[in-house]
Amino acid sequence: MDLGIGVIGAGVMGAEHARILRRAVSGAHLAGVCDRDPARAAAAAGDAPVFSDPLALIAAPEVAAVVIASPDETHAEYALACLAAGKPALLEKPMAHRAAEALRIVEAEAAGGRRLVQLGFMRRYDAAYGELKAVLGSGRIGRATVLHNVHRNVSVPDWFSGPMAITNSFSHEIDISRWLLGAEITSAQVFPAGDRGLLMVTMRTDGGQVVSTEVNINAGYGYHVHAQIVGEQGTVEMAPPGLALTNAAGAHGFDFPADWIPRFAQAYRDQMQGWVDGMAAGRLGGATAWDGYVTVAVAEQIAASLRDCQPVEIALPPRPEFYR
Amino acid sequence: MDLGIGVIGAGVMGAEHARILRRAVSGAHLAGVCDRDPARAAAAAGDAPVFSDPLALIAAPEVAAVVIASPDETHAEYALACLAAGKPALLEKPMAHRAAEALRIVEAEAAGGRRLVQLGFMRRYDAAYGELKAVLGSGRIGRATVLHNVHRNVSVPDWFSGPMAITNSFSHEIDISRWLLGAEITSAQVFPAGDRGLLMVTMRTDGGQVVSTEVNINAGYGYHVHAQIVGEQGTVEMAPPGLALTNAAGAHGFDFPADWIPRFAQAYRDQMQGWVDGMAAGRLGGATAWDGYVTVAVAEQIAASLRDCQPVEIALPPRPEFYR
Amino acid sequence: MDLGIGVIGAGVMGAEHARILRRAVSGAHLAGVCDRDPARAAAAAGDAPVFSDPLALIAAPEVAAVVIASPDETHAEYALACLAAGKPALLEKPMAHRAAEALRIVEAEAAGGRRLVQLGFMRRYDAAYGELKAVLGSGRIGRATVLHNVHRNVSVPDWFSGPMAITNSFSHEIDISRWLLGAEITSAQVFPAGDRGLLMVTMRTDGGQVVSTEVNINAGYGYHVHAQIVGEQGTVEMAPPGLALTNAAGAHGFDFPADWIPRFAQAYRDQMQGWVDGMAAGRLGGATAWDGYVTVAVAEQIAASLRDCQPVEIALPPRPEFYR
Amino acid sequence: MDLGIGVIGAGVMGAEHARILRRAVSGAHLAGVCDRDPARAAAAAGDAPVFSDPLALIAAPEVAAVVIASPDETHAEYALACLAAGKPALLEKPMAHRAAEALRIVEAEAAGGRRLVQLGFMRRYDAAYGELKAVLGSGRIGRATVLHNVHRNVSVPDWFSGPMAITNSFSHEIDISRWLLGAEITSAQVFPAGDRGLLMVTMRTDGGQVVSTEVNINAGYGYHVHAQIVGEQGTVEMAPPGLALTNAAGAHGFDFPADWIPRFAQAYRDQMQGWVDGMAAGRLGGATAWDGYVTVAVAEQIAASLRDCQPVEIALPPRPEFYR
Repeated sequence: MDLGIGVIGAGVMGAEHARILRRAVSGAHLAGVCDRDPARAAAAAGDAPVFSDPLALIAAPEVAAVVIASPDETHAEYALACLAAGKPALLEKPMAHRAAEALRIVEAEAAGGRRLVQLGFMRRYDAAYGELKAVLGSGRIGRATVLHNVHRNVSVPDWFSGPMAITNSFSHEIDISRWLLGAEITSAQVFPAGDRGLLMVTMRTDGGQVVSTEVNINAGYGYHVHAQIVGEQGTVEMAPPGLALTNAAGAHGFDFPADWIPRFAQAYRDQMQGWVDGMAAGRLGGATAWDGYVTVAVAEQIAASLRDCQPVEIALPPRPEFYR
Repeated sequence: MDLGIGVIGAGVMGAEHARILRRAVSGAHLAGVCDRDPARAAAAAGDAPVFSDPLALIAAPEVAAVVIASPDETHAEYALACLAAGKPALLEKPMAHRAAEALRIVEAEAAGGRRLVQLGFMRRYDAAYGELKAVLGSGRIGRATVLHNVHRNVSVPDWFSGPMAITNSFSHEIDISRWLLGAEITSAQVFPAGDRGLLMVTMRTDGGQVVSTEVNINAGYGYHVHAQIVGEQGTVEMAPPGLALTNAAGAHGFDFPADWIPRFAQAYRDQMQGWVDGMAAGRLGGATAWDGYVTVAVAEQIAASLRDCQPVEIALPPRPEFYR
Repeated sequence: MDLGIGVIGAGVMGAEHARILRRAVSGAHLAGVCDRDPARAAAAAGDAPVFSDPLALIAAPEVAAVVIASPDETHAEYALACLAAGKPALLEKPMAHRAAEALRIVEAEAAGGRRLVQLGFMRRYDAAYGELKAVLGSGRIGRATVLHNVHRNVSVPDWFSGPMAITNSFSHEIDISRWLLGAEITSAQVFPAGDRGLLMVTMRTDGGQVVSTEVNINAGYGYHVHAQIVGEQGTVEMAPPGLALTNAAGAHGFDFPADWIPRFAQAYRDQMQGWVDGMAAGRLGGATAWDGYVTVAVAEQIAASLRDCQPVEIALPPRPEFYR
Repeated sequence: MDLGIGVIGAGVMGAEHARILRRAVSGAHLAGVCDRDPARAAAAAGDAPVFSDPLALIAAPEVAAVVIASPDETHAEYALACLAAGKPALLEKPMAHRAAEALRIVEAEAAGGRRLVQLGFMRRYDAAYGELKAVLGSGRIGRATVLHNVHRNVSVPDWFSGPMAITNSFSHEIDISRWLLGAEITSAQVFPAGDRGLLMVTMRTDGGQVVSTEVNINAGYGYHVHAQIVGEQGTVEMAPPGLALTNAAGAHGFDFPADWIPRFAQAYRDQMQGWVDGMAAGRLGGATAWDGYVTVAVAEQIAASLRDCQPVEIALPPRPEFYR
């Protein structure tokens, strides 16, 4: 069996997904690419057909499943169309622009009674995060009490306003923290630091844990993601992210990448292979629609707290039976 | 010139100070030891005279300066006695049991018009902390915005109650954070995590910085102190605290010490040498009485907030002219 | 295009190659497995056909290319059969049991005028080795002068005699050293150390470099491969091979794997994808038949020197025009 | 008791020894400095008297012990003078210019029947080397089989000819290897690499061990000393020599010093304190005259082998009874 997969959106991420489907995944092939810009779609498509209408791509019989990597505000519409068509979708985060919109996807999927949506939280496929979860699961460090996250970007453009640091950057930590700890976020508080947009975010979970995250959108020196779990008997953290160490020009060390693509290149490939394998096995892994909704909802409530930086109790509807 | 120095208290720290004065410092010698337990005093004193009355030791003509390492509740009394005698004192932290008491030392020293008190915050003499401060001072990482501290003890006895995690352990972070950042603490909030006494403490400074500290009194695996300064252009942090790395029994790494003494052994020696050199030069370095007072006052106010874990605005009197 | 690939040999490595072809490679599928043990072949084959005769598998029309992972002494025969059939072969090392035999493959391929053989020196596809070569190629550390290799296995069975440490383990270093340095081995000398089979091997290259390798077949603590290139202006080496670092039970560090499979799992996958991509592009990468021959020839001459551990000048025929 | 110590030679090392005696050692004081350049002597002496004649300094009643840090060719003469005067001497390496000369010191000391000479091999007082020896001694890595040494200098002046790389730089590895392994060197072979003076030196010991050393006098990037002991059950090596790690300007790491003084500053202080303590206890530690002689003799024989780089069997007289 070799699944035909269509990709909506041929920007940086969509083009990378298309490339992976053409060159680096087993059991699937690229069945079509759609983008507002036909040249960009064609460049990403290789030999695969190009679509100008996303809904036509979703409907195409040769398209068995869809990767949605179009602009954020369109994610919900295409996800709902995939659900209506009964086709699995791998949805780039954020799931939707607003929590209310994301909830409609959850409700539609639950109503359909079949899991079709996987969120593109690729960190769940990152080998280093996987090791952290495995060590925690092994019991070697005892039960988790604190999770320290660091999320640093070199710099952001001016239009990347304060709330986007939460809804865009920090949404990765919301998802990965829930996944690592197997716990739900119950409250949060933001502490701005300095005057270049750095936010320290402290969250509590229903497991009594504290998640402390440095969201640093103007770190200056490079793209750098780090995490450390503190357990009752020990800790586990990512090793420094360098494969090779140089001694040169008076210094020892390694270089940081300028953005997330080199850091998570293998995670994107493994995510795609995992999604394809999951569809073949009839058992999707990765982040669910509920995970996607919770991330949007938590981010939305924390972003709203930026006005006064007061503590915020996170309000979420009960987890639907379908996602238990 | 070879200064005669007396030591009050011959417990773990007092005995170590006496040993350093006998064996590992230039320009000074041990001139006497006083302890409630005469055998303990004699063991620490070597060839030096033993005193049974701390005030007699302070008054003795062969004692030019005093190390106060007696039980915490006596620090203030002996410090005031040294001030009255016009003799320099190196005072183990905490400066006093209550901020009000500490303030009396500040006032007495300021009234005397001569700096005589140095607080035993030995981390200021630790080479790794020194490197952090030097890198920050060099401008290489830009202005500091966040300081991440980790303070982990293997475990604590039952009587080491919640507030002591703040007034005892965390007092080191209060002092070293102020010293590293050259800033004053303005507010704080405590987030308890898990059920073994771990506290995440978030403080703000008058420089707009956030200081985030994991105070982990039951870390399980070893004694471990870490700090990382996040600047606008980069970061600087302590290297992993192992001199030698083993590959053995399936694993790579190094061992942690069980307590702070091996970790800070050299800092204690360098503190003593620095204090002796400072006295000889007529220019004491290290933490002042004001620093000691502020640490007690900040710790007291944060410890009081443990009842409800609400944010607390730190209240301090204006810094006296004498300490500017 | 989707290449059908047959696998000869379903031992540890053959089964892993078959698994990769079934589950983790793009542009190819598993077209058959052959093994003396039919049950083992069937287990590795999944849905693909099982062959009992290697030559039948090579001849099968649905088999476009062949992975040879059968016992070492059969490699040459099957490689020659692939060449006769005009089908590409990925050949597990060693290329042949004796250099003379390996040379026949070289001659046969050169006579055919088309490159069909790739040696399974998977380290060339390892990301860490790739970084070393990239840094050297960048000029950042100047021209290479020394290469330090470390090759440690936990332990070997009794039948793994002294010469096998050279012809089996060390053959990886022969290949990767030539590849990293872009130079040919000209002489070698072995220094045995201790009494558990450890060999220090010093080789010189035609580029004036020294390659120093610790071949440690009973390292005790784990499987560990390391390399450092010393250049005229600096050095580059592999980072410690741990993705996640733990602090637990008094120690900091990470665990070593028990053998090479976890360490090089990704390299095996990338090698297979690289081979498939190379066939599709009509431009094979990786180690050539000539590289395979040289490795066998150098190893044979060094192994012969083990009797007296005298220096040995390496004798090689001129590199055929075809491989320049 | 407070020993008066004279220093002969006020160059870089002599001035540092004088400074340590004035400011950083317990139980001793600087009793005089002698140098051909009176201004240099005065600068190093502080308040201590200045001598113009080394023999007068050795004879002076206020000088109880002597540090010999004068030009290499004078070491033997002043050491013999100290022995004649019955005064302890801390002798900078090399012990003498020629082995024959060094042997006379050994014979004179043995004839006197009292240990008076300690060689200034400060690496024996370095904390990292100490950890290596302690781990080996603990049995945790089994018996030692290989010692890997790396000795890198940024660059050397033109007059620093080939043999000096052995007699000067490498002499440190001769001593420290014997000390770490508790074994004697029996043979050696030099492998030059590249064309900037790098030498790979392979030595064997009477314990069946191999010592492999990279003597790299033009490493380019910084001053860097490293050692790793390979044992039958594991390995132990120095941690990377950085106290603080920066992330800045795209890279992670730490800076190397330009020469050995920052790297071994603490070892020089601990050596002096250890020497003073040893004299006070009547039990000198550190490297003996015999160690100093062996180092000169081994270096001399290896340096002679540089003409043809053939293996050399090390010839040493039997160890005198006095040094067993």
